[in-house]
Amino acid sequence: MLNDIRKDYLLNRWVVMATHRKRRPVDLARKETDIQKFSRSSCPFCPGNERKTPPASLVYLKGRKSTVRKKDTNGIRHKNWLIRCVPNLYSAFSHPKIGESFSSGKAVGHHEVLIESPNHNEQPANAKISQLVYVINGYIDRLEDLSSKPYVKYVSIFRNYGLDAGASLSHAHSQIIATPMIPTILSDELSASSEYYKANEKCIFCDIVEREKNSPRFIWGNKSFIAFAPWAGVHPFEYWITPKEHQPTLSELRSQTTRDLAIALKTCLNGLRSLLNDPPYNYGFHLSPNEETDKHYHWHLEVYPKLTIWAGFEKSTGIYINVVPPEDAARSMKRIIERN
Amino acid sequence: MLNDIRKDYLLNRWVVMATHRKRRPVDLARKETDIQKFSRSSCPFCPGNERKTPPASLVYLKGRKSTVRKKDTNGIRHKNWLIRCVPNLYSAFSHPKIGESFSSGKAVGHHEVLIESPNHNEQPANAKISQLVYVINGYIDRLEDLSSKPYVKYVSIFRNYGLDAGASLSHAHSQIIATPMIPTILSDELSASSEYYKANEKCIFCDIVEREKNSPRFIWGNKSFIAFAPWAGVHPFEYWITPKEHQPTLSELRSQTTRDLAIALKTCLNGLRSLLNDPPYNYGFHLSPNEETDKHYHWHLEVYPKLTIWAGFEKSTGIYINVVPPEDAARSMKRIIERN
Repeated sequence: MLNDIRKDYLLNRWVVMATHRKRRPVDLARKETDIQKFSRSSCPFCPGNERKTPPASLVYLKGRKSTVRKKDTNGIRHKNWLIRCVPNLYSAFSHPKIGESFSSGKAVGHHEVLIESPNHNEQPANAKISQLVYVINGYIDRLEDLSSKPYVKYVSIFRNYGLDAGASLSHAHSQIIATPMIPTILSDELSASSEYYKANEKCIFCDIVEREKNSPRFIWGNKSFIAFAPWAGVHPFEYWITPKEHQPTLSELRSQTTRDLAIALKTCLNGLRSLLNDPPYNYGFHLSPNEETDKHYHWHLEVYPKLTIWAGFEKSTGIYINVVPPEDAARSMKRIIERN
Repeated sequence: MLNDIRKDYLLNRWVVMATHRKRRPVDLARKETDIQKFSRSSCPFCPGNERKTPPASLVYLKGRKSTVRKKDTNGIRHKNWLIRCVPNLYSAFSHPKIGESFSSGKAVGHHEVLIESPNHNEQPANAKISQLVYVINGYIDRLEDLSSKPYVKYVSIFRNYGLDAGASLSHAHSQIIATPMIPTILSDELSASSEYYKANEKCIFCDIVEREKNSPRFIWGNKSFIAFAPWAGVHPFEYWITPKEHQPTLSELRSQTTRDLAIALKTCLNGLRSLLNDPPYNYGFHLSPNEETDKHYHWHLEVYPKLTIWAGFEKSTGIYINVVPPEDAARSMKRIIERN
């Protein structure tokens, strides 16, 4: 069944009415159960339990020379995988059945889970770099496949870590949601960056990288990426990882840059973990929805530690209160990363 | 010291860098302490502890015939109050000192706490109606006083209830923040409602009231107000309380409508409490910032129960996932209110 999707009376704000998500493991009433309560044998993402998920849309298997990409079928679940990507059982967006018309106002799309490792606790902060390279390549493969569908306008790739950040299962995983519209935040960013491009004949993110790499908000960098606490970050200890070169979306990553991204991810998330006692966090990629028409956009990853609560003021005004200035956050992150 | 206020690189999104808020009772790292841990004798909002707060900007005292309005001074703290409003010790916005210039980019403003009752636990869901009338009148008095200051562009009146909704003290209280700019959400609502007014020669909220009073999203109503679950509510069990008559802001409330609002508040919050086992919530007033120029706006109160977590998807896309359709929420609320 397709969920309804609705626009607010006034705001350009969309909501999916995803009724059947009520049945997912972590339910409405907040229970003080430990997220780790699933033993390995009952974890639906652990090896041996492949039948607890729908057939995978993508599986990486170890080949003789390189990774082999496969799909599960209803009858077959591949074993000995490196990563696997499966439809979310509690999906917010659903793909249309054959013969179903896509009436507007329906949450047509896809919602998948990318299981990042056969090892239950191989989170990016402590993963092998080679494993993170699989994860990033998995993101790119699913992004390209989902983007090619006619009803998909955007593919959101994100990660929730920890119960307080909304993760309902502890096995290392990311999520991928393909939506039938350009999300509000992306659409606002696209307009603003397009205007900037027209006025200045350059990419605003290239300028941001240039400015932040020598600012007190700079955290860490390698050949291909810089990490910095954004000037007006909304969350305490928020940071962004941005490619130094102009790249609209992930599909332009080559093998060395993919490796550099894996190193950037691990280094910064491990820093965050050491600094704040393994806090919950969310991260999300911001990507150009259309490489042809939105060349002015420059992809990046935003990481939001979950340390505070948005309350009545934030929610009713859209003004946020950040209790840690980005300069202070960057200084602490930089110091701990150098020590790690 | 004035906090910095910053605009995002791209979005029309503002952030206050409120460094010294780090020192408030509930701190960054989430502690599993009970919010009720303050004993009455140590609660800074309980009678007898008036010296634990700065001098009140407003105190209601019981007079012979009607309520008497007073202010504290540095030397004097009034006793036997009905409600009192004090500057927030951990303020996000600060008023300028005499002689200080208001440079742009500073979080000039006010941040106050309205202590709603001398009784620690007299929350709106279980308050006497006469007490809630004091609270609403207190809102109006502070709104009028703060709005009259030249550097104030908007006054946000809101309430956080419960630790998970961001309340750091359990004594019944609301908060009032006066900001030097029109907040994003208000500004978006004002533009949209102004456009609607020009196109249709009527107020969009008057139309919403007309439509929702007979819809499956209707919850409750009296002579002056209706409560309904909004069509595209972002939070499960979100509802709005809206005056039936066109009123830009609170200052037009007369004594009977104030009483009707008190009844609406109590009835609906008590319904929510019965239905969902006393859940945390936030509420916020949406008011016309300027009665002269923004006559097309129609004030209302938005109530957001805190039952779910906004995670990576919501935060990186601005698309929200609501797991309870407003029609279902309204049906349950209606039923429990009729039974209460």
